[in-house]
Amino acid sequence: MKLVSYRTKSNSGNYRIGAIHGEFVLDIQAAYQAFLLSKKEEQLVDELDTILPAEPSRFFAIGLPAIEKAEEACRYILNKKDELESLKLEDINLGTPISSPGKIICVGKNYADHVAEMQSDIPEYPVLFAKFNNALIGPEDAIETSDVTKKLDYEVELALVIGKEATKVKREEALSYIAGYTIGNDTSARDLQKRTPQWLQGKTLDRCTPIGPWVVTGDEISEPGNLAIRSFVNGMERQSSNTSHLIFDIPFLVEFISNLITLNPGDIILTGTPDGVGFAMDPPQFLKDGDVVALEIEKIGRMENKVVHIK
Amino acid sequence: MKLVSYRTKSNSGNYRIGAIHGEFVLDIQAAYQAFLLSKKEEQLVDELDTILPAEPSRFFAIGLPAIEKAEEACRYILNKKDELESLKLEDINLGTPISSPGKIICVGKNYADHVAEMQSDIPEYPVLFAKFNNALIGPEDAIETSDVTKKLDYEVELALVIGKEATKVKREEALSYIAGYTIGNDTSARDLQKRTPQWLQGKTLDRCTPIGPWVVTGDEISEPGNLAIRSFVNGMERQSSNTSHLIFDIPFLVEFISNLITLNPGDIILTGTPDGVGFAMDPPQFLKDGDVVALEIEKIGRMENKVVHIK
Repeated sequence: MKLVSYRTKSNSGNYRIGAIHGEFVLDIQAAYQAFLLSKKEEQLVDELDTILPAEPSRFFAIGLPAIEKAEEACRYILNKKDELESLKLEDINLGTPISSPGKIICVGKNYADHVAEMQSDIPEYPVLFAKFNNALIGPEDAIETSDVTKKLDYEVELALVIGKEATKVKREEALSYIAGYTIGNDTSARDLQKRTPQWLQGKTLDRCTPIGPWVVTGDEISEPGNLAIRSFVNGMERQSSNTSHLIFDIPFLVEFISNLITLNPGDIILTGTPDGVGFAMDPPQFLKDGDVVALEIEKIGRMENKVVHIK
Repeated sequence: MKLVSYRTKSNSGNYRIGAIHGEFVLDIQAAYQAFLLSKKEEQLVDELDTILPAEPSRFFAIGLPAIEKAEEACRYILNKKDELESLKLEDINLGTPISSPGKIICVGKNYADHVAEMQSDIPEYPVLFAKFNNALIGPEDAIETSDVTKKLDYEVELALVIGKEATKVKREEALSYIAGYTIGNDTSARDLQKRTPQWLQGKTLDRCTPIGPWVVTGDEISEPGNLAIRSFVNGMERQSSNTSHLIFDIPFLVEFISNLITLNPGDIILTGTPDGVGFAMDPPQFLKDGDVVALEIEKIGRMENKVVHIK
């Protein structure tokens, strides 16, 4: 499934969790309600907002059990060839797939070519740092920048969404803890990132970090360690690599992180960026008002965000 | 007010927000309900869980407006000399004052004597890093350690709790954005902190970071920049300083951080630790199973946590 946070263009209400099927979006909670009613389970309908919340962050905070119910619901609707609550893609807006994860853990220095272009050293252990939720925006939002930075840079990254509580997970089991995959832009204000020894202040400016366009569930990506990954600025290719070049691969990262930090459903892990960032160009090229940054990851899709300078 | 997260010893249910008065704790939601009923505002009682939630993190996520209502409610109850829902301190347990803040922002290298003992340099800008909520525990909980670290260290710190949304705040206005103050132990696994250039992995191990014992509201601490701050391990003094020695003081920190990151009610800022950490002793002394760490900050109080090694 491709899970989206959506609302209709005609209704500026809350974003709801949906699943894309061809040119349509199914509303998952509505589909599950129809499924329950078909089985005469009316009493569960009253608890629907707890069992299968419509709010996307709450849906992902339940994780894999919610995804299983969503699959059941979509199968039911699609088998019936029912058009229940299915909306055309052109009639909806997409929001941040998960706007309030419990954690956003980022991995730095995780592609050798990027480590080289940053004139740094290959790390012995994964380098972990954080972003906060104030940074997150959706696939249709503008990346905001302002006078606080003169050196805003893009970083295309494969993002993992955790599907169940994970503590001391073995790498062989790691993929079963993942709900799905999405694209993240680990935008980095290089001047702020580098003015102190800790990067946080350059990594979590308000509304700078798009994720999306959707979360592709784990069953659709059997080899997350072999996906083409690319970025473009104003149509010109800047980064082009493959997740097979990760220094610390996804099973290792889940083992490593969960050995230190209990992960919960909905937590996001950004796995690092390949070479080709603006900071390393000669001369360096930073993002400016009006630029369009497009990110692509194989089997997930493409996300395009405009950069807007805010007064 | 001293705001606590409490539950009765006889009832292992959810923690609720309370206020300490002498030897008693008032339940704030129950007190406000009595206040509303006395004013014949029955219709507001139905919305009580939205207006003034009993769950402490939700209470602090409302921030200063919730604190104002809590003050009103406590005044009402105390004037009536009513014993409504007032419990003896000896009959309750204290939980983490805010167990799920939106952000935990830590400031490193913020006392000159600590920078010197760590053989580091005085920073030109505040050094910011993060913890996640998995790290938080309450004033009566044990600091957990395990075989993942051999070098767990204590750091007593003054912690700020944000009271209203703060973006681009001027330092002159900064204190009006603070809900209150508490004590935090920025425990640090020095081996994990230092094995990569980013400290995060040594700062956010599960259940390592106590905060508490309560949040003292801003009206009771007019000079947060002049508070004695001390730590003890097994009764022996290790750190003793004063918040007047902060390199970047509280108004500056709120201005600096809010210029980069929008702060929300309930967010926690740990302002840095003075000299005297175990890492800098000769030979270094790290925390071990059975140790008791006591932290004191003037006008706030004392928090004592045992260290327990988990298999």
